Amino acid sequence: MSDDRHRSEDGSETRSEDRSDTRSEFWCELVHTRTGIERDVVLTIADGRIETLTPDRPVPAGASVLPGLTVPGLANAHSHAFHRALRGRTQAGAGTFWTWRDRMYQAAGRLDPDTYLALARAVYAEMALAGITSVGEFHYLHHGPDGTPYDDPNAMGHALIEAARQAGIRMTLLDTCYLRGGLAADGYQPLAGVQRRFGDKTSDAWYERWSTLRGDENTRIGAAVHSVRAFSEKDDYATWTARTKGVPIHVHLSEQPAENAACVARHGLTPTALLDSYGFWTEHATAVHATHLTDADVATLGRTGAGVCLCPTTERDLADGIGPAGELARAGVPLSLGSDSQAVIDLLEEARAVELDERLRTGRRGHFTSAALLAYATATGHRALGWSDAGRIEPGALADLTTIGLDSVRMAGTVPRLATESAVFAATATDVTHVMVAGRTIVADGVHQLVEAVPQSLNASVQALFGT
Amino acid sequence: MSDDRHRSEDGSETRSEDRSDTRSEFWCELVHTRTGIERDVVLTIADGRIETLTPDRPVPAGASVLPGLTVPGLANAHSHAFHRALRGRTQAGAGTFWTWRDRMYQAAGRLDPDTYLALARAVYAEMALAGITSVGEFHYLHHGPDGTPYDDPNAMGHALIEAARQAGIRMTLLDTCYLRGGLAADGYQPLAGVQRRFGDKTSDAWYERWSTLRGDENTRIGAAVHSVRAFSEKDDYATWTARTKGVPIHVHLSEQPAENAACVARHGLTPTALLDSYGFWTEHATAVHATHLTDADVATLGRTGAGVCLCPTTERDLADGIGPAGELARAGVPLSLGSDSQAVIDLLEEARAVELDERLRTGRRGHFTSAALLAYATATGHRALGWSDAGRIEPGALADLTTIGLDSVRMAGTVPRLATESAVFAATATDVTHVMVAGRTIVADGVHQLVEAVPQSLNASVQALFGT
Repeated sequence: MSDDRHRSEDGSETRSEDRSDTRSEFWCELVHTRTGIERDVVLTIADGRIETLTPDRPVPAGASVLPGLTVPGLANAHSHAFHRALRGRTQAGAGTFWTWRDRMYQAAGRLDPDTYLALARAVYAEMALAGITSVGEFHYLHHGPDGTPYDDPNAMGHALIEAARQAGIRMTLLDTCYLRGGLAADGYQPLAGVQRRFGDKTSDAWYERWSTLRGDENTRIGAAVHSVRAFSEKDDYATWTARTKGVPIHVHLSEQPAENAACVARHGLTPTALLDSYGFWTEHATAVHATHLTDADVATLGRTGAGVCLCPTTERDLADGIGPAGELARAGVPLSLGSDSQAVIDLLEEARAVELDERLRTGRRGHFTSAALLAYATATGHRALGWSDAGRIEPGALADLTTIGLDSVRMAGTVPRLATESAVFAATATDVTHVMVAGRTIVADGVHQLVEAVPQSLNASVQALFGT
Repeated sequence: MSDDRHRSEDGSETRSEDRSDTRSEFWCELVHTRTGIERDVVLTIADGRIETLTPDRPVPAGASVLPGLTVPGLANAHSHAFHRALRGRTQAGAGTFWTWRDRMYQAAGRLDPDTYLALARAVYAEMALAGITSVGEFHYLHHGPDGTPYDDPNAMGHALIEAARQAGIRMTLLDTCYLRGGLAADGYQPLAGVQRRFGDKTSDAWYERWSTLRGDENTRIGAAVHSVRAFSEKDDYATWTARTKGVPIHVHLSEQPAENAACVARHGLTPTALLDSYGFWTEHATAVHATHLTDADVATLGRTGAGVCLCPTTERDLADGIGPAGELARAGVPLSLGSDSQAVIDLLEEARAVELDERLRTGRRGHFTSAALLAYATATGHRALGWSDAGRIEPGALADLTTIGLDSVRMAGTVPRLATESAVFAATATDVTHVMVAGRTIVADGVHQLVEAVPQSLNASVQALFGT
């Protein structure tokens, strides 16, 4: 299967409308590269990739001018698109994590392929406006309300792929295997209520459905196990891992202490150790959250080459706690970032939160450089989603670029040599002015070029879901 | 003195250019009141105050229409205006709190009354654009670079008052008594280097200078002790407290564990207990930060009626830690919010951070309602600054109003009944569309009406301070 998954990487399935086939030229005021800030940069782009990068040049005739700081396109490595409908609504009164999850299930119960396409298209357009050029959609809303598959068993996944295509961003569909309703003291629970939409009944049935998904030039097919709560040892981790070898695989890991306690009680192992015993952790694997880890868990992730996707604004919102970002980084674990619950869609806020939360946790400043934090939002984020050629600005890389304006009140006072610091610590999604994917401009002057009236589209989709 | 300070409250020193003397009428789509959301509200404003509030009305002929959610003007209860020049610059490489303070001192060494007026005017304009209608300026940059007073000993304070006047917002000048250079194991240190600008040599000299300051309709004169590190027992807390009786007094309190340790070592008391022994804590007093308190400290603040000003984005940035917001609220301590170091100027972000940081600290959701969080940014914030008639939308209150648009991508999906929840948890300073102070519009459609080109003004001031 992995050959099929990767076949599209060589461009053999290129769809001409999704790429720029002509050479184009841009002049960027400032560019963040792996070696630092370059000024007055001429970029030439051909066939969706950066061809040349030349600093210290005047504006060439005919070049498009990008004032501000141009950074690699941002990778949102963990998204549940439909959670966007909950923004603001889960803050009424008090509530636990499980209360929040119950409300999330209410939303999950009401979507169908058409309404999910409309909602996700607007959500991905919001992401594009925030400078996100690739999204990892952790997708488990597979079937009809009672668990009956749609005529196209991947109707919902196809709706998400189409939504990303219409919004102009890359998609890695992390199609999720979700077989159990939870892990309690007396064992694994069956899927119940709206959870029936998530389930494929068996790991084999999940594989049968999953293996018919196809990527394209702007789409990768990845896979996920929801969590150790939703996949038991009887579901055969080893076969699942063998079947998904070589594609990006993700799993929610140790988000809450209760998950760890239940896993240890059942298996005598932490979730990290349990998955390790089945060979889940490789350089293709990403643990999402990884908030409550033992030292041994950190070492396991470091040893196996697995990555960790932090979702700080969601982890605040859901009271998960602050994960061991410093320990993970020191163990060599590649970190990536996700908007997850969509309480906030702003990867710059996620990036600075890694450092700021580490300051709160340790009582000390200065753990991560701004360049490292930006790499989590770009290069390592793309790596976690299987886009190894994106997330950096250099010849040969995919021409996915995000430009951050320096002319807002927030960014005023920025010095060019510290533009990355200002972008990571002071900019917000609002400061994103220009976004391109494979050399195609999808946001210009803060306006989406493919999706009209994004707020109104979001309003309409959310109202259709909940009523007023 | 307190009579002089308060004389302006009855309007006897009204300056006609700072208020609307004619009656005006507004129609607001949604209004946040103490009892909940009202819709289709007609507000009449006369002599700078709200005269009538009538919900469920059509738009009257001639009324100005304010789409979105109108909330009380926001009070920024703790500001050091000049720290805005540091934004982005203190994130380069690693650094401790004291490294940060050294860089802050570098900036502090270079300002004079003219350049501080220009910088503060732009900073307060940024605050106005963020919906802030009152600022508490914790001001200690009093004298010339070597400590020599200016010809007008309050030249710097007057520059700040003028800056707020030009930016159209209310000011409470918390003129700060700063007499010692720090508290170490061997006792209090003398002021040194740039600290000489902060000091009045003696508490009597501070009082002599302070007592010539005068408020006006939009200005209050308050006072501050910098911290227990900068004011020794020999400086005579009791006299200081008696002299400032009845005006808002503030103090940095227990921001870092090292301050507590030094205070206990010297005095055998925590900073809270030390100040309590001198009668510092009353309903006019505000402790800024209060991050590292004992249970007895919390009880003391609760018993005395003192307030606490939290500055969550600064406390993250400086690695101070997360203060005991829940315990303070349960002890009945009025909470307020401040932008402090200006790393971020967004009181909505400060408000949600109180709840979100409490979630991180406790592992549970649902500590504060959105209405309570908004009250910290409005009613109790104004209380901490001595503006008892501001911070609520009701007849008789000062007509200080901030309108938050609901039409951005961030706010899309807002339901009217949960508009406060959306504003507190999803809006940013960018979503502020309209701001009025005493019935005078200072921001319309997100554009400052009194200060042109705010980002350019900030750029010019910061560059003048640091070079490029």
